[in-house]
Amino acid sequence: MNCKQLFLNIKNKKSFLCIGLDTDIQKIPSFLLKYKNPEFEFNKLVVDATARYVIAYKPNIAFYESNGPDGWRSLELTISYIKKKYPDIFLIADAKRGDIENTSRMYAKTFFDTIEFDAVTVSPYMGKDSLLPFLKYKDKWIAVLALTSNQGAEDFQFLNTRQNERIFETIIRRSKDWGSINNIMYVVGATKASILAMIREIIPDHFILVPGIGAQGGSLKEVVKYGKNKNLGLIVNSSRSIIYADNTELFAETAGSKAKETQNEMNILLKQNNII
Amino acid sequence: MNCKQLFLNIKNKKSFLCIGLDTDIQKIPSFLLKYKNPEFEFNKLVVDATARYVIAYKPNIAFYESNGPDGWRSLELTISYIKKKYPDIFLIADAKRGDIENTSRMYAKTFFDTIEFDAVTVSPYMGKDSLLPFLKYKDKWIAVLALTSNQGAEDFQFLNTRQNERIFETIIRRSKDWGSINNIMYVVGATKASILAMIREIIPDHFILVPGIGAQGGSLKEVVKYGKNKNLGLIVNSSRSIIYADNTELFAETAGSKAKETQNEMNILLKQNNII
Repeated sequence: MNCKQLFLNIKNKKSFLCIGLDTDIQKIPSFLLKYKNPEFEFNKLVVDATARYVIAYKPNIAFYESNGPDGWRSLELTISYIKKKYPDIFLIADAKRGDIENTSRMYAKTFFDTIEFDAVTVSPYMGKDSLLPFLKYKDKWIAVLALTSNQGAEDFQFLNTRQNERIFETIIRRSKDWGSINNIMYVVGATKASILAMIREIIPDHFILVPGIGAQGGSLKEVVKYGKNKNLGLIVNSSRSIIYADNTELFAETAGSKAKETQNEMNILLKQNNII
Repeated sequence: MNCKQLFLNIKNKKSFLCIGLDTDIQKIPSFLLKYKNPEFEFNKLVVDATARYVIAYKPNIAFYESNGPDGWRSLELTISYIKKKYPDIFLIADAKRGDIENTSRMYAKTFFDTIEFDAVTVSPYMGKDSLLPFLKYKDKWIAVLALTSNQGAEDFQFLNTRQNERIFETIIRRSKDWGSINNIMYVVGATKASILAMIREIIPDHFILVPGIGAQGGSLKEVVKYGKNKNLGLIVNSSRSIIYADNTELFAETAGSKAKETQNEMNILLKQNNII
């Protein structure tokens, strides 16, 4: 999927919502625990209830791998299920990987071959050769951590360099040409919405993946105000506030309503901003 | 295991060698492919041939997860096998993880509960709250990426801050007090041996995990010269040059000889430097 197709999906769905599948075996309704792959059963029901309102899903790999091989199996089943039933939906592995070239090649294999994600989140700390193996795959993306939504973002990401730039700016500026607008997007937390405008100046045409709406407190309106470009250029993620909105047997229905609510809000913002 | 016990193991074994289990299904001898968990079969033979010469093993998680659930099962089997048969050996998950607190907690669960590693390598980019969940575990360690051995290390790790420090220095200086010398060590590539002396000044008492000996070209003598402290404070890793030294049915025997050779060299360096 390229940049243009992503925008086409946004226009078709009148949505730029990504739902984070942070599927925690401790938090899902207990009746699902009787299955061999409870995370998959949970995801399947959430996906069927929300797919019409979203353009992307973002499973958080930590939650699957913490259950060992069975968790990985749930992840595989989830991705196969979505790819088959909803082929237009963009699938992001939230994995924050990145290592020396020889190892990154294996991480790319994991998320692009073994499991057919469209994108994987990567940590830029190890530099260019740690990201290139991912960029060798046609039609696959990396989402590079730039500015994260947690408090710890203050510790290193905001350090000023002697070139009078903050580290996250240098990372964006240098890495943007390692690929193109069709295979690199950047992660910028919604809790720092006003900084989005400044980041937009560095990367006018790249997609930005924005976590932190919902449980982490970011505002959708602010994100669009500061982060949009002419094709929107935004994918906004919400995880816990949708998938854990309800802990009863009706959890999927409630997740559907919450997703619909967010999509409605997005539709209005897309129109107000003359994007659609 | 604490700092003192690690040093005790170094003295007992007259070795500070860690073998990286970068077990690649494409590279292991083909006769192993008939097993359900070929990576485990390979590791078991390598471990039995090398355990007497090493103080640590470091499976590289990318190589296991690229094979999905079966790869993760091989990883689990490897760790259980080593823990049972060689309980003194320190087990490092080379995973380069790190995410918001809620997610890092799941990664810590993966590598400290689900699979009982002693340590996990982590990426510091997301700051303090991304590392603290790992530090809550008693007797477990993080190995924080400081200065890596790849070319891409030049891209961001060497950036100068306005405080006239390079990023990797700031990371070490700030993070060292988030835990103690008993649960934080730092990853510093052997290809930058002369910088080890400067890093030693910032962290005189911490262990440093040094990858990059062997296939990546670092020199053991230089590493000890510049990186040692009074208790050595070094764990030196070698992966490919030991485990893939021989591709025949005798691979384990050859790995054993290579490990013995390195341990001999380490024994001499430990004596020359009055560490033992």
